[in-house]
Amino acid sequence: MNDKLNELKRLTTEIYDLRMSVALLEWDQQVNMPPAGGGARAAQMSLLSRQAHELGVSEKLGQLLEDLKPLYGELPPDSDDYALLRNVYRSYEQQQKIPVEYVSEFTQTTGEAFGVWARAKEKNDFASFRPWLEKIFDMRRQYAGFFAPYDHIYDPLLDDFEPGMKTAEVLGVFKVLRDEQVELLRELGNRPQVDDSFLSGHCDTDGQWALCREAVALIGYDLNRGRIDHAEHPFTTNFCRDDVRITTHIYEDNMMSAIFSSLHEGGHAIYEQGVAKELDRTPLGTGASLAIHESQSRLWENLVGRSREFLGCFYPRIQERFPRRFGGVALNDFYRAVNRVEPSLIRVEADEATYNLHVMLRMELEIALLERRITVADLPEIWREKMSEYLGVEPRNDSQGVLQDVHWACGMIGYFPTYALGNLISAQIWEQAAADLPDLAAQIGKGELASLREWLTGKLYRHGAKYYPSELVRMITGGGIDPRPYLNYLNRKYRAVYS
Amino acid sequence: MNDKLNELKRLTTEIYDLRMSVALLEWDQQVNMPPAGGGARAAQMSLLSRQAHELGVSEKLGQLLEDLKPLYGELPPDSDDYALLRNVYRSYEQQQKIPVEYVSEFTQTTGEAFGVWARAKEKNDFASFRPWLEKIFDMRRQYAGFFAPYDHIYDPLLDDFEPGMKTAEVLGVFKVLRDEQVELLRELGNRPQVDDSFLSGHCDTDGQWALCREAVALIGYDLNRGRIDHAEHPFTTNFCRDDVRITTHIYEDNMMSAIFSSLHEGGHAIYEQGVAKELDRTPLGTGASLAIHESQSRLWENLVGRSREFLGCFYPRIQERFPRRFGGVALNDFYRAVNRVEPSLIRVEADEATYNLHVMLRMELEIALLERRITVADLPEIWREKMSEYLGVEPRNDSQGVLQDVHWACGMIGYFPTYALGNLISAQIWEQAAADLPDLAAQIGKGELASLREWLTGKLYRHGAKYYPSELVRMITGGGIDPRPYLNYLNRKYRAVYS
Repeated sequence: MNDKLNELKRLTTEIYDLRMSVALLEWDQQVNMPPAGGGARAAQMSLLSRQAHELGVSEKLGQLLEDLKPLYGELPPDSDDYALLRNVYRSYEQQQKIPVEYVSEFTQTTGEAFGVWARAKEKNDFASFRPWLEKIFDMRRQYAGFFAPYDHIYDPLLDDFEPGMKTAEVLGVFKVLRDEQVELLRELGNRPQVDDSFLSGHCDTDGQWALCREAVALIGYDLNRGRIDHAEHPFTTNFCRDDVRITTHIYEDNMMSAIFSSLHEGGHAIYEQGVAKELDRTPLGTGASLAIHESQSRLWENLVGRSREFLGCFYPRIQERFPRRFGGVALNDFYRAVNRVEPSLIRVEADEATYNLHVMLRMELEIALLERRITVADLPEIWREKMSEYLGVEPRNDSQGVLQDVHWACGMIGYFPTYALGNLISAQIWEQAAADLPDLAAQIGKGELASLREWLTGKLYRHGAKYYPSELVRMITGGGIDPRPYLNYLNRKYRAVYS
Repeated sequence: MNDKLNELKRLTTEIYDLRMSVALLEWDQQVNMPPAGGGARAAQMSLLSRQAHELGVSEKLGQLLEDLKPLYGELPPDSDDYALLRNVYRSYEQQQKIPVEYVSEFTQTTGEAFGVWARAKEKNDFASFRPWLEKIFDMRRQYAGFFAPYDHIYDPLLDDFEPGMKTAEVLGVFKVLRDEQVELLRELGNRPQVDDSFLSGHCDTDGQWALCREAVALIGYDLNRGRIDHAEHPFTTNFCRDDVRITTHIYEDNMMSAIFSSLHEGGHAIYEQGVAKELDRTPLGTGASLAIHESQSRLWENLVGRSREFLGCFYPRIQERFPRRFGGVALNDFYRAVNRVEPSLIRVEADEATYNLHVMLRMELEIALLERRITVADLPEIWREKMSEYLGVEPRNDSQGVLQDVHWACGMIGYFPTYALGNLISAQIWEQAAADLPDLAAQIGKGELASLREWLTGKLYRHGAKYYPSELVRMITGGGIDPRPYLNYLNRKYRAVYS
């Protein structure tokens, strides 16, 4: 039996190594590759992805899993081996349900849809993208069908990004969230706006790079086991726990964008760097889910990075680096400026108080479309209405509205909720950390972030994907996903910023 | 039959894409990877290499090749399809002869030998490396045995790097070369030495980078289909013809090192960028052999880069970039300085007049060891004797002598001759180019290198690996490998530099 288990581990490590090779090909494409190399690169990535997929659904793996069932029944549920088998059973069974022809048609469709979307966005021409989006939603309905019966058609889609999460649970949580966040937003809108004009204006790139490095080093991202590069769209990637890379985008006239983005990606990276060595290069050697991952990027970006304590320690470095721009700006004004609330048209530019509203809008539309309560043709209009209702702003055109980002064109339906769940979980974990580390705020004020990082590593990071997201949340907080801590955090913080 | 041919092409493209993915993993390792990522990276590279190897010796490929024999007999010998089949037959048959266990033992042995060598070199301790080197030479004898009968035990080793080349031919050519080069060196040694003291001294890295970019752009390396990065040991790599990357190493106190190294790697890169689009992502979509490749790196580095004409055009840019250092140095003094001849202890630092002597020494030792005329234990002593005889210098210790470079530790026996053959071929091709382009020297003097590059592309680059090296040399020069043009070039140039 041990031989079979070792053979399984060998096979899953091979799959892991293939996927990590694809990750490097992709990182290079976004960071280094001359554009002309794109054709060959796509072929290389598709080849290795196919090999990984084929191994993951291979008869050989199926037979090993079958043979290992008696062992699986005997292993202690908190052992690494049990978790590995549980993970592999789950993904094997899921993959088995998806016909090969479907995968290839869906890849083909989204591949072409991406180009159509990019042109449609450029030309503000939703009509040209509409048939593609209809096909993508049709195919996602078909996909959900492979997993029937289900409680909700959205469940199988959501489950791909957030293992074990149910639509009903998310909707319940979001209902509370939406009402209170809309209310908070109305209230803040009636108070005098915060001045953040001094945040715009030229800051040289070298200085920005230096500050980004200092910021991520301060929170404990280990640059000896990583690196930071420039990319059009910032992301984090890893090829093993000892090679976890982040990227950022420098804007010469908006310095804080790169710094907060670096803290965000740095948060993702610290999580990956903290996974236990024993789990490295196994299917468990990575973050547990998108929402749990996002809870850590948002925790380091916002709960730490946008806090008065952290800025009390880091803002002097900014002033030192750019004395002419910030020498005369007081800490409190700076703190309020980077926490200014202003409804915007797109999630990626949203502040903490409005961010979740973008997410909820998207999830509601996705569900309504899947349930055929609305049609793709209705989208532009409904988008505008909901934006107005939740955020009080309306896109001037479809490029700013329904065409604003790439998720749907890539077929990523069911992805958005993880962004908001990440926020909620970040505040739940934060409350627990603050309870366990009584002088947390004081430590942050001194730029001492090791205790927090070690606490997170012990509670969360080291486990990798050994436990399901809901198990992790329960292990850390003692309960399920709960919007209360995040709402408390928002209400307290932003009523003070706007007092 | 066409279906089978297409299936073969699909398979060889898959092998190619796997190998190019390995090339990216390796490029990244040398350019970007945090050292801690090395363990996982080695596993990733070894996995993909193994997959490529397994496809290359697969029964499926064997059956396709068997089925395609009638077609192969009918195809016109100058067609791409004929060349592809010839190439695949050749490599399939070669690979079939090598037992899988041998490959794995040899990989294991050289993997470990590398570490032993690095420590031995550091500690000047040849004795610790000796058993490893003995095993490596034993295993290479065994390797040659797989290809018996052969004319010479060195033939199968040489053939791996230089398809079709025979030891007897190389030895014949080298005999002429050695006597004349040793004679030239004695003669130059009796003349007053050239002053190159002004070449040392600090030049800032930004300025060096700019000059390296200008230099390679000037010779026509297309940076839109490539890029230049820093690496400890400069090299060129490619992932398709439209993504060919070079690296260089900047020394703050030795500027010309990076510039000539960039021209060298740029020469390799121009070759790869010039391969016909139809051959891309096939086994023919790359340079024909190491010697042919080296002929192009050396041609652009030396016959162009170290010529009075090129420097006449490029030196003013160097003066402009570093006026305090070079403003007062005349072109002729600069030209003579970068062509200074001085016997050194290692090939990588050797000038044109001494370079081949290092190569010949190594090849003679390799052959004597394989033929058991000497033993590994004799090496340090014989190394010193030959260095003294050919170059008039002697290493102070084994780290500078027999342990000086990594080739043997990696099992690369039979590799060295290609360095010198590259020099010879570069001069043969150059003579032909000069005959076909009567105003070549004048064009170079004006920095116009397009005609030369287009001539080389038409005669050589576009063919990729469609023809064997000897066929290419014959197609371009009308004859075989001939040391005369290179000797004429050396004698003429260096007698003038030292006149």
